[in-house]
Amino acid sequence: MSTNETLHLLTHHRSIRHFKDQALSNETIQALLQAAQRTSSSMFMQQFSIISVTDPALKKQFAEITTYPFTQSNGHLFIMVADQHRNAFIGQEAHEDTHLLHDGDRSLAAFDDAALAGQSIVTAAESMGLGAVILGSILNDAQQVIDLLHLPKLTFPIFGIAVGYPSENPDLKPRLPLSSVHFENHYQEPDPKELDAYDQTIAAYYAKRSTNTRTETYRHHILHDMQVSPKKRSQILTVLKNQGFFTN
Amino acid sequence: MSTNETLHLLTHHRSIRHFKDQALSNETIQALLQAAQRTSSSMFMQQFSIISVTDPALKKQFAEITTYPFTQSNGHLFIMVADQHRNAFIGQEAHEDTHLLHDGDRSLAAFDDAALAGQSIVTAAESMGLGAVILGSILNDAQQVIDLLHLPKLTFPIFGIAVGYPSENPDLKPRLPLSSVHFENHYQEPDPKELDAYDQTIAAYYAKRSTNTRTETYRHHILHDMQVSPKKRSQILTVLKNQGFFTN
Repeated sequence: MSTNETLHLLTHHRSIRHFKDQALSNETIQALLQAAQRTSSSMFMQQFSIISVTDPALKKQFAEITTYPFTQSNGHLFIMVADQHRNAFIGQEAHEDTHLLHDGDRSLAAFDDAALAGQSIVTAAESMGLGAVILGSILNDAQQVIDLLHLPKLTFPIFGIAVGYPSENPDLKPRLPLSSVHFENHYQEPDPKELDAYDQTIAAYYAKRSTNTRTETYRHHILHDMQVSPKKRSQILTVLKNQGFFTN
Repeated sequence: MSTNETLHLLTHHRSIRHFKDQALSNETIQALLQAAQRTSSSMFMQQFSIISVTDPALKKQFAEITTYPFTQSNGHLFIMVADQHRNAFIGQEAHEDTHLLHDGDRSLAAFDDAALAGQSIVTAAESMGLGAVILGSILNDAQQVIDLLHLPKLTFPIFGIAVGYPSENPDLKPRLPLSSVHFENHYQEPDPKELDAYDQTIAAYYAKRSTNTRTETYRHHILHDMQVSPKKRSQILTVLKNQGFFTN
């Protein structure tokens, strides 16, 4: 098969969590934003916004929420925002009924649009030799993020993206076997034997990787995270509904 | 700024909706799937699955649901599935409590993971000279898609991706001005003057583009789609909850 630079990038993605304390140039940030903007959106409604967190006091608060100190010193911190507020604004200008924007479909559309654009930022960053990590951990306190960023109704911060100059070169982390995640025509139930084999693969990876070695299989990881969630994170549905999403 | 092949691709994305009736090789499909698999996932839980729809009878039904006949004849049709079912299976094997998998946070995580992986497929396809379009229109009848693909509880089809050899070369569609979607530190309310200018940009694009010209501003587009939704699509929240998502 013909390979190319982009395929190589996509199939060699590693999340980067250690960065040089070096800001991105404005030109680089603009290039990342342009990649995000060009991404597909549901029904061409562009239901996302992006907030760059540059204020040191704000960054400190994100370091506390995410528990990742590097959000203070990485190159740049983006927050991806699902956004039906802009459409609601257009509806209100025209005195039109905006109730559809709150339904499950339009809620998912906004969350999809923000996620798709976020992935374009990650890929664009990696193409420039930068490293990136998606920070779901901003949801450890979604309400605080909403307050800090002054997010109005019908917006929601789905994740952050820390981008910067990498100061680590982590190993590739093995994924589930393709046969466990890709099916033809019909969904297939998980195969315990495939999970057994993958457990061994992950245990070997954690035991041998260059940093942060540990003894853990994939099932251990899943079972642990199935039992434990930060309290505010397990209450996100309330925040989502307060923001006006998934209400009809 | 240094540009590169990947940035060029990302900033020149157009959705392709007309394809040659030519299947993708198995090698190409594998490359797309490998790009999807390597994508970041929330807490490394890989909460997505991908179903390739290859059965002609099934493809015909997707053409009816989406109203896009090309889903029968494009190169390949992927359905991206948000998937907490695999984790629930692992929990049930171990007789552990799985209720967290139903909460808003884990629901969003699965929807994010599937969307992120989907965007990698789009970018990978474009890097190989293929065209792609994301098909939110499978949600015109989410329950039927669930039935057709035998999707169990804690899975949900978020969108399809039609990939193939393009038989069109559409113009680049202008996006909202960056200042309308990117903010620093705090969310900014929409600026009616920026929307006025973008209305003119979009009206000029629709009037002049090479096919399917029409008279429409951006606000017209948003206001129309705010009033009209296929009935089953406006009831997706019920289907989401029946599937076990967003229930606590």
